[in-house]
Amino acid sequence: MMIYWIDIIGTFTFAISGALAAWDKKMYHDLFGVFFTGFITAIGGGTLRDVTLGVHPIAWVKDAYYILAISTGVLLTIFFRKRLQQYRKSLLLFDTIGIGFYTILGVEKSLQFGVNPLAAVILGMMSAIFGGVIRDMMVNEIPLIFSRQIYATACLAGGVIFVLLRQLGVPENVNEIVGIITVISIRIISLKRGWSLPHLSRNS
Amino acid sequence: MMIYWIDIIGTFTFAISGALAAWDKKMYHDLFGVFFTGFITAIGGGTLRDVTLGVHPIAWVKDAYYILAISTGVLLTIFFRKRLQQYRKSLLLFDTIGIGFYTILGVEKSLQFGVNPLAAVILGMMSAIFGGVIRDMMVNEIPLIFSRQIYATACLAGGVIFVLLRQLGVPENVNEIVGIITVISIRIISLKRGWSLPHLSRNS
Amino acid sequence: MMIYWIDIIGTFTFAISGALAAWDKKMYHDLFGVFFTGFITAIGGGTLRDVTLGVHPIAWVKDAYYILAISTGVLLTIFFRKRLQQYRKSLLLFDTIGIGFYTILGVEKSLQFGVNPLAAVILGMMSAIFGGVIRDMMVNEIPLIFSRQIYATACLAGGVIFVLLRQLGVPENVNEIVGIITVISIRIISLKRGWSLPHLSRNS
Repeated sequence: MMIYWIDIIGTFTFAISGALAAWDKKMYHDLFGVFFTGFITAIGGGTLRDVTLGVHPIAWVKDAYYILAISTGVLLTIFFRKRLQQYRKSLLLFDTIGIGFYTILGVEKSLQFGVNPLAAVILGMMSAIFGGVIRDMMVNEIPLIFSRQIYATACLAGGVIFVLLRQLGVPENVNEIVGIITVISIRIISLKRGWSLPHLSRNS
Repeated sequence: MMIYWIDIIGTFTFAISGALAAWDKKMYHDLFGVFFTGFITAIGGGTLRDVTLGVHPIAWVKDAYYILAISTGVLLTIFFRKRLQQYRKSLLLFDTIGIGFYTILGVEKSLQFGVNPLAAVILGMMSAIFGGVIRDMMVNEIPLIFSRQIYATACLAGGVIFVLLRQLGVPENVNEIVGIITVISIRIISLKRGWSLPHLSRNS
Repeated sequence: MMIYWIDIIGTFTFAISGALAAWDKKMYHDLFGVFFTGFITAIGGGTLRDVTLGVHPIAWVKDAYYILAISTGVLLTIFFRKRLQQYRKSLLLFDTIGIGFYTILGVEKSLQFGVNPLAAVILGMMSAIFGGVIRDMMVNEIPLIFSRQIYATACLAGGVIFVLLRQLGVPENVNEIVGIITVISIRIISLKRGWSLPHLSRNS
């Protein structure tokens, strides 16, 4: 049950981040562009995850609440666009919440399908970042994952902690919350402090 | 049976539109480039649809007639390239026929697999536009769906009408033809009259 | 058994080619960028193939040795980067070995799943080139397949020879080796001699 709500909240949050990104670009200033970018951002990662795992039919084609969550997210973005003046900050916030929820959801679903823990962590990370990669490519931004910020690394860290706590027998609900908070807080702290990944010089 | 022919005609038409787009760009002026672009345009949307629905194996790997339809489309394009001087107009025509057939096919197949009607319309639209999105990205054009023209909106309208008529018990064959004509005529009329989607200004 | 090793060697080789490509671009000079590009290059083609065929779960999420092969390839690339000064030549070499192994693997797997021989050859080619297409797009190069060199054509030739020898009853192991050598040698010879595909002029 809780895994269902994690999915809905992640989907809703990614829809907002997609709509915000489209909003920030003049070429997407029509209703379709904003909806479409929100939609693709919201379903991208989950679709990749489910297709890789062989889950059918994929959640959003089976259960109409996903499309409802996406539509609500996009409409709220359009409605409150004046208050979201600082697009970039809002975008980063909603993207961060989205990757937190989707990482843990992805790891958990993968483990349920008998995937090995190492691949489960990678698949969790990929499902979390993929929607945003498409979003950034659609609005012609360099994807956040290649910005040398702590981004995918935060997902990996949260996924590893989730898998380790699970091995130690920590209750699933506690485990989920700890995992989500780990991803979000690593991402926020590293953004505030300007942390980045070590640079590998070509001649070192 | 009719659904099979809708698929073959859509595939054939998209292959022509892909080959035409490749033809219009110097970098694709070799046989492989023209064939490959035609092929990807033709199978892109259907593959996305079948993978999302969990249909296996996908039509074109099971049934050799799809590859035959694609090859015929590409070869006809190469053969008649002198008569298709106005690449852009021909491209728009074949693309329009393609999205008409693929929208209705996608909605119908999705409903057969128990998808909810709302998701079926969206999946129908996505299967119709996806091949063209890849085609336009391959030849470095801004995808038609982002051109503020009535494009994906025409697919959505046709899909909605198909679903509504179906609920009303209209015979499947009539329903299919009405749906296809709806998509194609909305697209053509809006192109001729220069209709576009409402622009959402940032400060309104 | 041999098919498993063909897959592991192809995966390992593509991981090196991906890591080398990332290395050659300044924007990827962090550990995550090099690993991620190696990973996506290595799994891209096989994932596309398995998703199209409906194989679940996909090899790399089931069997941890794939991720091990990728990690080894990337780490070896980082470790020996000084000796691989001529990035471009090394990249072409490892990419060539990769497409050789993956073409034959893709054709063989497709035939096992009852795909028609024509589609099997195309799917073998696509699984061989897809990882490299994503790799080249990620590092902002024009994909090798569009460079007018003999590239995808070498894969097609190897796939056709594999299918023909199989019809003639040649033992599977001999057949696999002949197919792989065909792809690799056509690619290397055409690179050395500067062969390219015929150019289709617009006005001819």
